[in-house]
Amino acid sequence: MADRRCSTLGGLTPLQVTRPKSFDWVASRGECGLMDVISPGVPPGSDVAHLAMLGYEPYKYYTGRGAFEALGAGIELEPNDVAFRCNFATVSDDGTVIDRRAGRISNEDAKILSESLNGIRLTRSSDVEVLFKHTVEHRGVLILRDEGLSRFVSDVDPHKTGVKFLHSKPLTDSSAAKKTADALNEFVEISRKVLTEHEVNKRRTKRGQPPANIVLPRGAGTLPVIEKFPMKFGVKAVVIAGGAVYKGVCKAVGFDVLEVKGATGTVDTNLDAKMRAAINAIKVYDVVLVHIKATDIVSHDKNPTKKVEIISKIDAAFSTIISEVNLEETCIVITSDHTTPSEVGEHTGDPVPVALYAPGARYGNVKKFDEISCAVGTLGRIRGVELMSIIMNYLGKVPMYGE
Amino acid sequence: MADRRCSTLGGLTPLQVTRPKSFDWVASRGECGLMDVISPGVPPGSDVAHLAMLGYEPYKYYTGRGAFEALGAGIELEPNDVAFRCNFATVSDDGTVIDRRAGRISNEDAKILSESLNGIRLTRSSDVEVLFKHTVEHRGVLILRDEGLSRFVSDVDPHKTGVKFLHSKPLTDSSAAKKTADALNEFVEISRKVLTEHEVNKRRTKRGQPPANIVLPRGAGTLPVIEKFPMKFGVKAVVIAGGAVYKGVCKAVGFDVLEVKGATGTVDTNLDAKMRAAINAIKVYDVVLVHIKATDIVSHDKNPTKKVEIISKIDAAFSTIISEVNLEETCIVITSDHTTPSEVGEHTGDPVPVALYAPGARYGNVKKFDEISCAVGTLGRIRGVELMSIIMNYLGKVPMYGE
Repeated sequence: MADRRCSTLGGLTPLQVTRPKSFDWVASRGECGLMDVISPGVPPGSDVAHLAMLGYEPYKYYTGRGAFEALGAGIELEPNDVAFRCNFATVSDDGTVIDRRAGRISNEDAKILSESLNGIRLTRSSDVEVLFKHTVEHRGVLILRDEGLSRFVSDVDPHKTGVKFLHSKPLTDSSAAKKTADALNEFVEISRKVLTEHEVNKRRTKRGQPPANIVLPRGAGTLPVIEKFPMKFGVKAVVIAGGAVYKGVCKAVGFDVLEVKGATGTVDTNLDAKMRAAINAIKVYDVVLVHIKATDIVSHDKNPTKKVEIISKIDAAFSTIISEVNLEETCIVITSDHTTPSEVGEHTGDPVPVALYAPGARYGNVKKFDEISCAVGTLGRIRGVELMSIIMNYLGKVPMYGE
Repeated sequence: MADRRCSTLGGLTPLQVTRPKSFDWVASRGECGLMDVISPGVPPGSDVAHLAMLGYEPYKYYTGRGAFEALGAGIELEPNDVAFRCNFATVSDDGTVIDRRAGRISNEDAKILSESLNGIRLTRSSDVEVLFKHTVEHRGVLILRDEGLSRFVSDVDPHKTGVKFLHSKPLTDSSAAKKTADALNEFVEISRKVLTEHEVNKRRTKRGQPPANIVLPRGAGTLPVIEKFPMKFGVKAVVIAGGAVYKGVCKAVGFDVLEVKGATGTVDTNLDAKMRAAINAIKVYDVVLVHIKATDIVSHDKNPTKKVEIISKIDAAFSTIISEVNLEETCIVITSDHTTPSEVGEHTGDPVPVALYAPGARYGNVKKFDEISCAVGTLGRIRGVELMSIIMNYLGKVPMYGE
């Protein structure tokens, strides 16, 4: 949701143009501030951003995206597993990447291909077990399972077309990193053969569709070793989100995941269903995290006008939260996990506005929820990793240090 | 002094209701801000809070409450000593705690009982020397003295009635922790016999008073190993306080302690005597720290109205400081060591307002000393551990780093 001043919006931010009534309500009755989700100037990835906002020092606890993606896809990870995000892609005979999404392959085709990769046997790295699961469209998750593996290996995905796919390399001197890179490269090699000869791809080629003839793994990750959120703060917590990674990070720290019908993680997500689910969940859980992806999508698409429209829709849906929860015993926080300026189209390191309503909260003179107004709020400028402690303090859940 | 917005005060904080003239004077001519005494959201204990505000990183230097309490009680601690806060209490034959204060035993009785415990010999832990000193009412301090002891042992005091007193356990695998827990348990065992058979308790029982038949130690602590405050900043410093712990922390870091008649650490403390003592002390010392406990006491009692009254009294007493010190060469700082919301009744992790007058200080537009007004001051949001360095900078006492 957070943005910069947009020239196409008359020098205002999308939030300033929208003037969302329900967010302004929280801002005017809550503590406001700006938050550096990671640290000043550092653009946060969605995974690290959430880890920080849940109270985990990101530079200490971040162990790569792959594990969060796998958890979000419903895979039960074991402590030694190394997980990768994967794309089905199209490469030429010499390995040049032609299409990183294999012509936006359908869920049906990708699912059948995934089944042919799940459980395949490696011969050189014969001790390493292979699990593969399709998630959405061209995306999937690869797990390498064995003792003595490492997440410190480079990506196979070159992250662009027109160049050859990469051979994974160990990023440390450890034998574990070498073993993992070897297994990963062998998986890519074998899977390429399996895919090339697969019926689905023969049919695709006949139909003029680009064959999904390779899997490009990236973002190696392992489960972070952390004190789980419910233990740390003595609360029951649940996440409502469309995207796999948000569910994955929350699951990794011990949240339950509430699957809501119509929560797609796209611009067409069912906002009302998510809000309704949140209102019901807060009756059972101490903490409910709702993530809405749509503002980020239109920001990546560089569409400030569409962003105003999306914010307006979220505002309308969110107003039911304010009108239905018991405000005498509920704390409400609105923020973004990062800034995505809609005239830039990428995550940036600008701080994000945050507003925190709680009974007794020391609200100040801020009346509007946006990137400029919140800067003079009573929260001042905080870090992402501090947010949960500030919230939990209002809930009386932070133990005293000292006597 | 710091609080939240109180529903019983029309949604204002006690400081906002009181509008203390002398504090507002400091705020309008000084730098203002909010201070996270430990870190955002973390409720500070009084001991850790003072350690931080005196410039010592609390997570690095805090070594338990006991040592501060012992120093505050005038005991000269040795580097290896492990000190405990203790209560005289009443337990039944099976060890169930009936009264954690032994019927708020008188100073006279507690003093006599303490003398019977000071220097008692342990038989199993025969190398460990025992010192015991009465402080106020039911309170005392226990010192275990020997080489190779550890503060990492659990409390004997269960912190509530209706349950049995606890056996201290080592909290680490070290032999020192085991040795300390053993000695502590033996002390409790022997002292229980001594107390049960003591004439004072026989008399108390006859009179229908609960016998002080056990000592319940808690809060094991050792002297922190630190560079002393006078060395660190090149200043002479003194503390004026009623409560033992404030004097203890200051003494541990090298402050002198000025005992002021009538400084009781209660709501009836002699505020004028403390202010007068401060005005005299600043002629001899570079730094004078005055601690006033009364606002915290009425906050624990959940009495916002009484808090307004207390703040008003402190304000009146404090005004003599402003009128009598030489403002051309004096720096004046007002703050709290933690927030105790008077509708919550416990320390919370909300930041505290701080105002710092100094000649040449970059004061801004804040005119009022309270939790909301100070948030937009020129200090911004700072940490407790940074405060002393900011003060010492105005005194020209912080050495340059680099050339």
